[in-house]
Amino acid sequence: MQFHHHGYVSGDPRVQEAAGTGVDRPHELPEAMDVLVVGSGPAGMLLAAQMSQFPQISTRVIERREGRLERGQADGIQPRSVETFQAFGFAEQIVAEAFNIAYMNFWGPDPADPAKIVRTARTQDYALQISEFPHLIVNQARVLDYFADAAVRAPGRLVPDYGVEFLGLTVHESGEHPVEVRVRHVAGARSGQERTVRAKYVVGCDGARSGVREAIGRRHVGRFAAHAWGVMDVLVDTDFPDWRVKCAINSAAGNILHIPREGGYLSRMYIDLGEVPEGDNHEVRHTPLDEVIRRANQIMHPYSIDVRDVAWHSIYEVGHRVTDKFDDVLPGSDRPPRVFLTGDACHTHSAKAGQGMNVSMQDGFNLGWKLGHVLSGLSPASLLETYSAERMPVAQQLIDFDREWSALMARKPEEISDPQELARYYLGTAEFPSGFMTRYGASMIVADRSGTTVCEGFPVGKRFRSAPVSRVCDGNVVHLGHHARADGRWRVYVFADAQPPGAGSAVADWAAWAASPGSPLSRFTPPDADVDAVFDVKVIYQQRHEDVDVALVPDLFRPATGPLGLTDWEKVYAAGPSAWNDVDVFAERGVDRDGAVVLVRPDQYVAAVLPLPATDELTRFLDGVMIDRSTGHDPRTA
Amino acid sequence: MQFHHHGYVSGDPRVQEAAGTGVDRPHELPEAMDVLVVGSGPAGMLLAAQMSQFPQISTRVIERREGRLERGQADGIQPRSVETFQAFGFAEQIVAEAFNIAYMNFWGPDPADPAKIVRTARTQDYALQISEFPHLIVNQARVLDYFADAAVRAPGRLVPDYGVEFLGLTVHESGEHPVEVRVRHVAGARSGQERTVRAKYVVGCDGARSGVREAIGRRHVGRFAAHAWGVMDVLVDTDFPDWRVKCAINSAAGNILHIPREGGYLSRMYIDLGEVPEGDNHEVRHTPLDEVIRRANQIMHPYSIDVRDVAWHSIYEVGHRVTDKFDDVLPGSDRPPRVFLTGDACHTHSAKAGQGMNVSMQDGFNLGWKLGHVLSGLSPASLLETYSAERMPVAQQLIDFDREWSALMARKPEEISDPQELARYYLGTAEFPSGFMTRYGASMIVADRSGTTVCEGFPVGKRFRSAPVSRVCDGNVVHLGHHARADGRWRVYVFADAQPPGAGSAVADWAAWAASPGSPLSRFTPPDADVDAVFDVKVIYQQRHEDVDVALVPDLFRPATGPLGLTDWEKVYAAGPSAWNDVDVFAERGVDRDGAVVLVRPDQYVAAVLPLPATDELTRFLDGVMIDRSTGHDPRTA
Ligand SMILES: Cc1cc2nc3c(=O)[nH]c(=O)nc-3n(C[C@H](O)[C@H](O)[C@H](O)COP(=O)(O)OP(=O)(O)OC[C@H]3O[C@@H](n4cnc5c(N)ncnc54)[C@H](O)[C@@H]3O)c2cc1C
Ligand SMILES: Cc1cc2nc3c(=O)[nH]c(=O)nc-3n(C[C@H](O)[C@H](O)[C@H](O)COP(=O)(O)OP(=O)(O)OC[C@H]3O[C@@H](n4cnc5c(N)ncnc54)[C@H](O)[C@@H]3O)c2cc1C
Repeated sequence: MQFHHHGYVSGDPRVQEAAGTGVDRPHELPEAMDVLVVGSGPAGMLLAAQMSQFPQISTRVIERREGRLERGQADGIQPRSVETFQAFGFAEQIVAEAFNIAYMNFWGPDPADPAKIVRTARTQDYALQISEFPHLIVNQARVLDYFADAAVRAPGRLVPDYGVEFLGLTVHESGEHPVEVRVRHVAGARSGQERTVRAKYVVGCDGARSGVREAIGRRHVGRFAAHAWGVMDVLVDTDFPDWRVKCAINSAAGNILHIPREGGYLSRMYIDLGEVPEGDNHEVRHTPLDEVIRRANQIMHPYSIDVRDVAWHSIYEVGHRVTDKFDDVLPGSDRPPRVFLTGDACHTHSAKAGQGMNVSMQDGFNLGWKLGHVLSGLSPASLLETYSAERMPVAQQLIDFDREWSALMARKPEEISDPQELARYYLGTAEFPSGFMTRYGASMIVADRSGTTVCEGFPVGKRFRSAPVSRVCDGNVVHLGHHARADGRWRVYVFADAQPPGAGSAVADWAAWAASPGSPLSRFTPPDADVDAVFDVKVIYQQRHEDVDVALVPDLFRPATGPLGLTDWEKVYAAGPSAWNDVDVFAERGVDRDGAVVLVRPDQYVAAVLPLPATDELTRFLDGVMIDRSTGHDPRTA
Repeated sequence: MQFHHHGYVSGDPRVQEAAGTGVDRPHELPEAMDVLVVGSGPAGMLLAAQMSQFPQISTRVIERREGRLERGQADGIQPRSVETFQAFGFAEQIVAEAFNIAYMNFWGPDPADPAKIVRTARTQDYALQISEFPHLIVNQARVLDYFADAAVRAPGRLVPDYGVEFLGLTVHESGEHPVEVRVRHVAGARSGQERTVRAKYVVGCDGARSGVREAIGRRHVGRFAAHAWGVMDVLVDTDFPDWRVKCAINSAAGNILHIPREGGYLSRMYIDLGEVPEGDNHEVRHTPLDEVIRRANQIMHPYSIDVRDVAWHSIYEVGHRVTDKFDDVLPGSDRPPRVFLTGDACHTHSAKAGQGMNVSMQDGFNLGWKLGHVLSGLSPASLLETYSAERMPVAQQLIDFDREWSALMARKPEEISDPQELARYYLGTAEFPSGFMTRYGASMIVADRSGTTVCEGFPVGKRFRSAPVSRVCDGNVVHLGHHARADGRWRVYVFADAQPPGAGSAVADWAAWAASPGSPLSRFTPPDADVDAVFDVKVIYQQRHEDVDVALVPDLFRPATGPLGLTDWEKVYAAGPSAWNDVDVFAERGVDRDGAVVLVRPDQYVAAVLPLPATDELTRFLDGVMIDRSTGHDPRTA
């Protein structure tokens, strides 16, 4: 965590200085704004925290609810989401409070007495082997709380506008704020009033029954209802020995997905209520709680639960559906999009794979910086077209995975030939539910793979996977990627060739080029901004940290920034072994010993991997994404 | 973190339910209270957080300042303090924000050109090898903020009374509140008013010029001024390559202790201003800041600092002094103490070893639970006599260590024969400044060592050193000791013999004994309280966690507690290897394979280590500390 950069800060360093629209931010929803986010679920709240990092852009989040979510809904947090929380500054807090999944166990009928269940398999949960981040369970309400904290602590001081309902919108052809939005106050002093407000962009984060989706005429494609589940968060007295282990229970009487929850006592149970018949007309939603509990006991026989408290319950009836496009631009039109859909508003699926909240947040993470860069004048509006293009395939993969996984879990015992099969599938496909399988195709922000050097551990289009390195200035072992916060900046990781600093080397040449006025880094950084305001450049030497003489490192890697002109010491790293670290990131990620440049997007995805001398390719690539700022001023701080 | 135990909690689980005096706690300082703490420094604020865990006891903390500390004072946090923060629930947050010391470097005159300094040694800082907790640097103000959070989130909802000055006190022979205290409001609406309030106990946490010390006629023994240091927290531009490394710089022009601070830019420098002559009369305190900066530059030659911002500076002039006793009881008197001294009020020393804040907090930690237990009727008042008896020797050791260390660091270059000597001393004595060398002698709360079984890794009288174990209920690897929060409870770690649960075994016999009505655990736990309200008993089996069948574990280790009668699953651990852990706590801490009982005090010190069959010894020991509650009611919750 870096702070005191503009002078000493007394108090919580997580609270950044207010700036731009965050200074005296109006409490009331204004008449016009740059970005209007509809809905404060995981997608909307990630966007709130992200846009609050762009304080020059006015962003408002409207939410029909009167206040924060209190309980219920999703609770599965994949490692990729924890990685995202790290970027928003609250990973260590939520990890301390969440339940950590170490194992997933499987239960099935006892072959000797099929009326009873027995444990058929234990699997070590995947997270620790796939990422440095864990696989957690914690209430969606708490995730939203942490994003709300992050949003209000960020320079934009963003707070959702609760009690405001979206009614409809019209996208006009022109005007500074072409989207006209009708809203109604449904709580507070203005309750009942309808208003029209205007925005440059609108993001529909308004969940499965999205009004924004309807307003732009997008269609949810797929079967509405496939399967119904009784869900309950319960405190019980039980003799079931795996009450604190995630379990799939498969018995003649039905199926349960059992998920221990944060705090050591609470658990969530999903009890299968079966296929919903065509003409059911939501009848299944009236299944009484008692009936759900009765079924749970039947499935768990010979074990039982005595429910002492029900924190939340619901009948979750959901189909596998994806919207036909995630923005408002019709095929054939070449205007840039003005309205976007994220999360459940554009994809729904079962809760079995624990993906809903996670994929929704990644939608928001994908879109937020793009809005930020276009509205800041750093990038052309065409950047916004990549949102739908990148996220639709992810949603489709999710639906496919979820369909397969739910079908496997919903099988009757007699359909299961090998009890280890589910366990094997669970581990074999772990990268997907961990959130790390997403790979974006080539576009203006993902280099064509053929044009890049191969660096096995940093596949182009996938998220940048961190590794431990030594920070040269102080010898601390830190995760290379964890320094990157969700502050909307591009990251450039410069892996040096084998020469130490001081010697003539490819990395020294690269630094001289990058610092020169004609380089894309210079041209795309506003002249009155800090040299690292748009591109945060870090270097990783191959030596041991003691052997890297900071005095000889090119200035680009230890720039003087901020009003006091203070040296940023935290851009120079070393891969050699030290007392506290024996991981060599070059070996660990297969980085060429001749060096490489890894360009990473603000949402942590690898945009390009290039050899050090390939400065022309880097220029060409960035020319396609950025607008020349060398003669303007920094729109983010001025 | 355990919560939802009394039903679902929406919101931050770190906020405990208000209870007792925490419900509608008066904003105004009342006329009478159980405990009055004077001063809100590290000792006072630890006590605030600790006493807020005893909500049946009314505790107030008065502080002369108008509000929170804003900057300056101490910043060195030893691993033992981080361990303590863990018990108060904020370790992960403060670690994320603090500077972590990985190395300490030493600089001395260049033999080739003694006018210049060169790096003479690098030493890996000790923390990671000594403890799972790091060695941190963070402003005292932030430490106090975190304790303030912990105090207000605890059931007692304690908030310091700012703007109230202690003037004097009288200890009366009798009465319910025998200590009469004179205070003056120095801020707020009542500013200027003097009042008399009464308390059962008063704790002087009022720093080096303690008025409480004076009021009880205790004397600070030792020389007042020995050495003066110019201290400054600065943001600079510099070419000194170790600006982000803790360094001792020893040059012909003088000495500097240089300490990088949190946030990546700020550093603290202690510049030696030499011995203060006898008749100086605090003249040294008028040394101008410019002069301090000039000296710093002189010492650092050929490097230099260009100071851009001074966050805080001070001339720190301090002697090595210890007060003759840490409470108000004169030798020969047998009444129990009513007034206590902690922290700088009873011991002062240089800042060189970075101990002040740390030892002060440990004073508070030692005293808090004792006040809690005596005022709750769990223990006799004689328990309070152990405070001075235990903490005076620690203070004396601190003075001795600090004197030696300061003398070594203050030497002139020509007195240093081997430049590695300081480095070797630093590492060789690391256990002391880490805070782990404290070992309390035998008393009513520390068993005579001869009477206990030997368990190398848990020395009686030292703090319980945690180790990783598997939690049986969910297979998570957790630190055995980290479950223990600073909630005023005793901990009983029962290390099982080699039998698994279910088999007849020494641990099963022990559990049967402990659960029987005549056992000390039963007798000293109020009958209407949870079975683990006073003694939190945990068991560690030698098997792998998969091989421990929770259904066969004695009920004592999985009690049903709270209003909902929920099973506490987090008391049963396993030492065998697992996918996530290969540390065997039995081997790691030298625990006898026939089992052992490790009794740990609420302040985390090992009180006794006994073989499983030695139930008579355990009874005898606890009979000396506790009052029979089997016929009363729980004073902490009723
Ligand atoms: C009742 C319910 C139960 C669920 N249970 C589970 C579960 O058990 N397991 C699981 O994995 N997932 C569950 N989910 C799904 C999971 O919560 C979602 O996948 C996830 O929250 C998607 O995030 P989102 O941000 O896209 O939308 P949501 O979290 O649905 O957020 C949408 C937000 O928009 C607001 N909104 C909607 N319309 C308007 C409007 N017109 N004007 C203003 N605001 C509006 C809503 O109030 C809501 O706050 C559940 C969802 C719901 C709604
Ligand atoms: C000005 C100063 C500079 C220091 N600089 C350093 C340093 O550079 N490095 C270092 O390691 N240590 C330093 N220390 C020492 C370090 O801060 C202490 O060791 C540590 O704070 C001791 O904690 P404590 O709780 O015992 O007392 P303190 O932190 O001193 O707290 C005492 C509190 O009591 C209050 N108080 C005093 N008298 C009264 C009264 N009559 N009524 C009400 N309230 C009262 C004070 O306002 C203060 O808040 C410094 C201390 C001071 C005071």
